[in-house]
Amino acid sequence: MRALTINTIEGLPDIREGDNLVELIIEKLTAQRQVLCEGDVLVIAQKIISKAEGAVCHVDDITPTEEAIDVAEKVNKDPRKVTVILSESTRLVKVHKHPAANEGIIITEHRLGHISANAAVDESNTDNPGELILLPKDPDTSARIIAESLCKYYGAPEHSIGVVISDTFGRPWRLGQTNVAIGVANVPALNPLYGECDAWGRPLKVTAPALADELAAASGLLMSKQGKCPVILFKGLEWESNPDSKASDLLRPTQEDLFA
Amino acid sequence: MRALTINTIEGLPDIREGDNLVELIIEKLTAQRQVLCEGDVLVIAQKIISKAEGAVCHVDDITPTEEAIDVAEKVNKDPRKVTVILSESTRLVKVHKHPAANEGIIITEHRLGHISANAAVDESNTDNPGELILLPKDPDTSARIIAESLCKYYGAPEHSIGVVISDTFGRPWRLGQTNVAIGVANVPALNPLYGECDAWGRPLKVTAPALADELAAASGLLMSKQGKCPVILFKGLEWESNPDSKASDLLRPTQEDLFA
Repeated sequence: MRALTINTIEGLPDIREGDNLVELIIEKLTAQRQVLCEGDVLVIAQKIISKAEGAVCHVDDITPTEEAIDVAEKVNKDPRKVTVILSESTRLVKVHKHPAANEGIIITEHRLGHISANAAVDESNTDNPGELILLPKDPDTSARIIAESLCKYYGAPEHSIGVVISDTFGRPWRLGQTNVAIGVANVPALNPLYGECDAWGRPLKVTAPALADELAAASGLLMSKQGKCPVILFKGLEWESNPDSKASDLLRPTQEDLFA
Repeated sequence: MRALTINTIEGLPDIREGDNLVELIIEKLTAQRQVLCEGDVLVIAQKIISKAEGAVCHVDDITPTEEAIDVAEKVNKDPRKVTVILSESTRLVKVHKHPAANEGIIITEHRLGHISANAAVDESNTDNPGELILLPKDPDTSARIIAESLCKYYGAPEHSIGVVISDTFGRPWRLGQTNVAIGVANVPALNPLYGECDAWGRPLKVTAPALADELAAASGLLMSKQGKCPVILFKGLEWESNPDSKASDLLRPTQEDLFA
């Protein structure tokens, strides 16, 4: 029997720019009598990484662009917010508003490559109305710095603790949201089984579990928005460290995008 | 600290038509000294439900239809397999083959409403080449029968044990696969937070975690294809039973499908 335990890390304060997340995580782990070791994985909500790194802006400081005013009118959104969404994006995928809906939807390709609603710009969970939380500048690097600091503090072998930075995305054909990985360190983003065989010896040609997305989605089982549990600890997972792993390994190349 | 444990149920035999899955699951749980109780959730791979229910067919028994021959030519697939894919589907969403690829892709809306590649028709993990495994006829009912039998056997309150039937789907914009829910019993498919507030008192208008899909994705962390672990047990999850829950709660209505 293989067993995996997932638990919350309780008591983290509201994160402010400049906070040392690693110190705070270690403090709270210690308070709940836990230590990290080789093979452990932390999933961390993007929001606290962005807040600690100051990846936030305020609508009052934004001067709307012409393009944003045009798009904002189509979807009935604040043109200042749309300006931020477009400045975070490299491509507009779809702008759509149903006549019955109050606000429409803007789907874009984020500069990090993720296709999502509103370029992952978030206005919930901020104690400051009008504040917009953006994705971290370089989530893979953020994850790597945290993973390395944790390995060092706990005396674990280099690259042996995994970190996934998650955000909450919708899906084109399914209702409800799940968490996905937007930054990874050490954990393989994809766990390729190419060339391996299934239980009956038949080659598994196209199966590559999206390991980092599975971890992110699993973290959602405990990371409720109300509960303020932005860091989730996984113990017992079997995985092979890949220090070159990156969240963009999970991105489908545009030429494979059937809806581009 | 909230904690969740996930473990495999080991030693299930290859499933054949007519096998009693509930009896087999109870036998293996007992062998690993586990009992189920209120709040436990099992995620079960679709494949063993389909096999037990006989939702399989063999390409040698299929006479290709005209439409299937036409589609098969476009994507370089066996027209007999395409016949089965189309007969499982209510709508062709996309047929596409890149010149460089050997086989193309057929995305359809399955009669159960799920949009996926090849109508979820699967030819891997069969000990019988040419055998195609279809989705179960009515996965919500399959899940409900299993959940009710388990509640009864373990003396748990009615509707207090959850069952999710999972399948492995690709995603339009992300590489790699994750498990999603195609059948549910008791566990809410969506865990709506509508009307509730976030940690800062701001209403959470659009957040509805796809709980059954989160459970399915999390099961993928232990349900490796090679490992033959088609049943995964979750203990410690907080959830409110909804006997009316169904997998189609996770389906985005066609009028909200921006790519229809």
